[in-house]
Amino acid sequence: MGHDLCDEIIGKWDLASYAFLCVTERKATPSEARLLNALMLAVADHGFTASSLAARLTYSGAPESIQGAFAAGLLGAGSVFLGASQRVGEKLVQLTDNRRGRTDAEISKEEVERALTNRERLPGFGHPIHKPVDPRSVTLFRLAKEEGLYLENCRLMAALHSQLEIAMKKKLTLNAAGASGAIMRDMGFEPSSMRLVAIASRAIGLISHLREEGVNPISQSVIDLVEENADYLPSGFEVGPITRTI
Amino acid sequence: MGHDLCDEIIGKWDLASYAFLCVTERKATPSEARLLNALMLAVADHGFTASSLAARLTYSGAPESIQGAFAAGLLGAGSVFLGASQRVGEKLVQLTDNRRGRTDAEISKEEVERALTNRERLPGFGHPIHKPVDPRSVTLFRLAKEEGLYLENCRLMAALHSQLEIAMKKKLTLNAAGASGAIMRDMGFEPSSMRLVAIASRAIGLISHLREEGVNPISQSVIDLVEENADYLPSGFEVGPITRTI
Amino acid sequence: MGHDLCDEIIGKWDLASYAFLCVTERKATPSEARLLNALMLAVADHGFTASSLAARLTYSGAPESIQGAFAAGLLGAGSVFLGASQRVGEKLVQLTDNRRGRTDAEISKEEVERALTNRERLPGFGHPIHKPVDPRSVTLFRLAKEEGLYLENCRLMAALHSQLEIAMKKKLTLNAAGASGAIMRDMGFEPSSMRLVAIASRAIGLISHLREEGVNPISQSVIDLVEENADYLPSGFEVGPITRTI
Amino acid sequence: MGHDLCDEIIGKWDLASYAFLCVTERKATPSEARLLNALMLAVADHGFTASSLAARLTYSGAPESIQGAFAAGLLGAGSVFLGASQRVGEKLVQLTDNRRGRTDAEISKEEVERALTNRERLPGFGHPIHKPVDPRSVTLFRLAKEEGLYLENCRLMAALHSQLEIAMKKKLTLNAAGASGAIMRDMGFEPSSMRLVAIASRAIGLISHLREEGVNPISQSVIDLVEENADYLPSGFEVGPITRTI
Repeated sequence: MGHDLCDEIIGKWDLASYAFLCVTERKATPSEARLLNALMLAVADHGFTASSLAARLTYSGAPESIQGAFAAGLLGAGSVFLGASQRVGEKLVQLTDNRRGRTDAEISKEEVERALTNRERLPGFGHPIHKPVDPRSVTLFRLAKEEGLYLENCRLMAALHSQLEIAMKKKLTLNAAGASGAIMRDMGFEPSSMRLVAIASRAIGLISHLREEGVNPISQSVIDLVEENADYLPSGFEVGPITRTI
Repeated sequence: MGHDLCDEIIGKWDLASYAFLCVTERKATPSEARLLNALMLAVADHGFTASSLAARLTYSGAPESIQGAFAAGLLGAGSVFLGASQRVGEKLVQLTDNRRGRTDAEISKEEVERALTNRERLPGFGHPIHKPVDPRSVTLFRLAKEEGLYLENCRLMAALHSQLEIAMKKKLTLNAAGASGAIMRDMGFEPSSMRLVAIASRAIGLISHLREEGVNPISQSVIDLVEENADYLPSGFEVGPITRTI
Repeated sequence: MGHDLCDEIIGKWDLASYAFLCVTERKATPSEARLLNALMLAVADHGFTASSLAARLTYSGAPESIQGAFAAGLLGAGSVFLGASQRVGEKLVQLTDNRRGRTDAEISKEEVERALTNRERLPGFGHPIHKPVDPRSVTLFRLAKEEGLYLENCRLMAALHSQLEIAMKKKLTLNAAGASGAIMRDMGFEPSSMRLVAIASRAIGLISHLREEGVNPISQSVIDLVEENADYLPSGFEVGPITRTI
Repeated sequence: MGHDLCDEIIGKWDLASYAFLCVTERKATPSEARLLNALMLAVADHGFTASSLAARLTYSGAPESIQGAFAAGLLGAGSVFLGASQRVGEKLVQLTDNRRGRTDAEISKEEVERALTNRERLPGFGHPIHKPVDPRSVTLFRLAKEEGLYLENCRLMAALHSQLEIAMKKKLTLNAAGASGAIMRDMGFEPSSMRLVAIASRAIGLISHLREEGVNPISQSVIDLVEENADYLPSGFEVGPITRTI
């Protein structure tokens, strides 16, 4: 019943196609494979984030155990960062399951109003650096259109974006988690599988960080920066109730 | 100088090509991209190993923190399993750096004799299940030949295999770590980068294990099996010097 | 302001007293120190659980990186197991904050009825092995009484236990998480700190498991057991949609 | 044969005594228990190190999975930092096993000469901040003397210190790993067990860091510092060969 690893997969499929099979139990079309490769690279974490810094610092303390540095880099991928695509997926499931004949604009307007009233943050929007536009989202949505995979969930995500900007009276970022959650949903991914994909993507991204930390390390500089600036950090130089006179 | 993520990579490259760039700082040819995808899928760990069991057990205790299950799955990828491809790479570097005009057969014969004399195990050979043939190695070497990437290091690895079988007077497995270490070396990977690639591959493989553990869990059955068989396990039911009367 | 590590703590305090200071920002009394040592040993995980098995399996794959085995052992300490004491703490805060002059019996009766009506499981009750009595809870409550630290939250926890048994018409286990959550609350711990203490306790417990795995390993036997019983495991020998003919 | 957890340990023993039993399989004397508590607190990591920063950064990304932050904090405890006490232990085993009637001064002089000739670094010496004196070592050796546990290995470590300072013609730090390795060896610990103890100690220390990160977070400030100073970091703002124009 299943696909034979050596005969059918190795040498014929790329990594993202394998991931696609794992979560959907069906073979990706060429369009889906292209889009999933794109999406996984977009969320692979190329910059200095909590996660990549934790990986690099861990590497500096245990360079012989590079698996530990990978693990540390993944462990920060919790609710704050990588949970976002899953929450986007869950929100889209909830809204499309209750469509009841309404247009995207109608559903979105109601959802934005509900969220603002409840002071609830809609998942998939906002970014500390990429504002008002996250170029990864633009690229991903363009690719989805090229491949004929810009479907119900992508359209609804875009409608939520419009209604949110109208309600807030300003430009707002539709971030990479928002775009990738909508695209994965349009390819039939369960929300719970979206986080699996996002974390595995981050593992690919960590190759770059850890290879570079090996060649051109920054960890000691980061620790020095923290030590030098300890007085300006919220907790100063004391760690809890212990005075480190040592 | 570098490659622009949104303009040049996302939508154009697959995950393995990105990994290739990260470790070699050059763009993979189509042949190299195909081979690296193949190789990463071959080492992704599809069965019940220490690593995949640790990931599944961790998931069962903390299903809300799927990043922890990934991390646990990677942490077992130490010297015993995934270090192997790196050690293969190091051995090949050492042998080719000291070629001094000798043929593969000459180098291999001498190395096998040296290893047997010193009771040293050559990396890349042997497998608890796949004996005498690891079908992944066969597939990977066939692909390398198809793509014109079966070069000096692959040939030397095969020569080591022959000489080892001659010296041991029996069939021996050239395992997936052996084949993939030789291929990565022929594509110009440093040995230290080989483990990075192997660990990231395993993260892709964990998508399958963890998605399945979510849908169709085995962890409780594993714990029950261990409890039932505790008397037959080496340590019995006691953990060290503590009696668990509780 | 703080306590000087070398002058005041090292040589004078035990580990649990240090942990007490960290989470409460005050010095433990001798009674509190004794009770916290007891409690941390009680939750240290002495048996074969998902967490200790994950640690041992990880050790078997990466014996040179013992920190990875510890990390794997902690990662399973999520919502299912170790989150329990925190949820006990949160429940007790909620109930005592809304006491409004009611007795423990009144509060408990109402809470048990509410939980049963909503099919909600009360934290701190039930155990797969220790039924109907968890001897660790009995010991911990006895010690709390000896030390004059069996206070409002312990009494309320006991009242919940009684009301739950009355409503369910059977004996039910008050587990170690239940007893330790109530005791920590009576010593002034915030619920969020309870999980910190529980996880650090487990790290102490892992010393025993990992020292023993080094001396007397069980991991390979566990993997063999799983392989032999693969047909009886829920997922059989297939991992998701991949056939491992290899 | 073993000690009963509920009857003999909980309520009677402190955490360090339990750890002592786990690694030596015998009960600690009161002196040994005091010393092991002291030693574990000394190596618990109270400052901003790679390990505590990795833990805090991980917490900031996944505050709901505090076990992941603990795990990240332990994962940096590899060869660079925490391996030191184990290497001290191994060195002391090696030197005392080859004593052949020589005095501590004779053994030490020879070992220091050998190490300097081979440009080999002796484990247990040197510290980036605590120079020329690590107050933890002073405190630990003082306690060992008070408790009658300053024995062969402590004396040899002190002799190595003297000979190293004579040979180098300057003051050198005998660090906490050096003192604690010697003390643990005098209490009969195997070198491989020393790292187990060191890592568990660090888990206790992480309670302080993570409780504080919850109350008074520094992670975002650390990331901001890194971003602001990216141009001064060795790798600048580029991560490997990828330009992050996004």
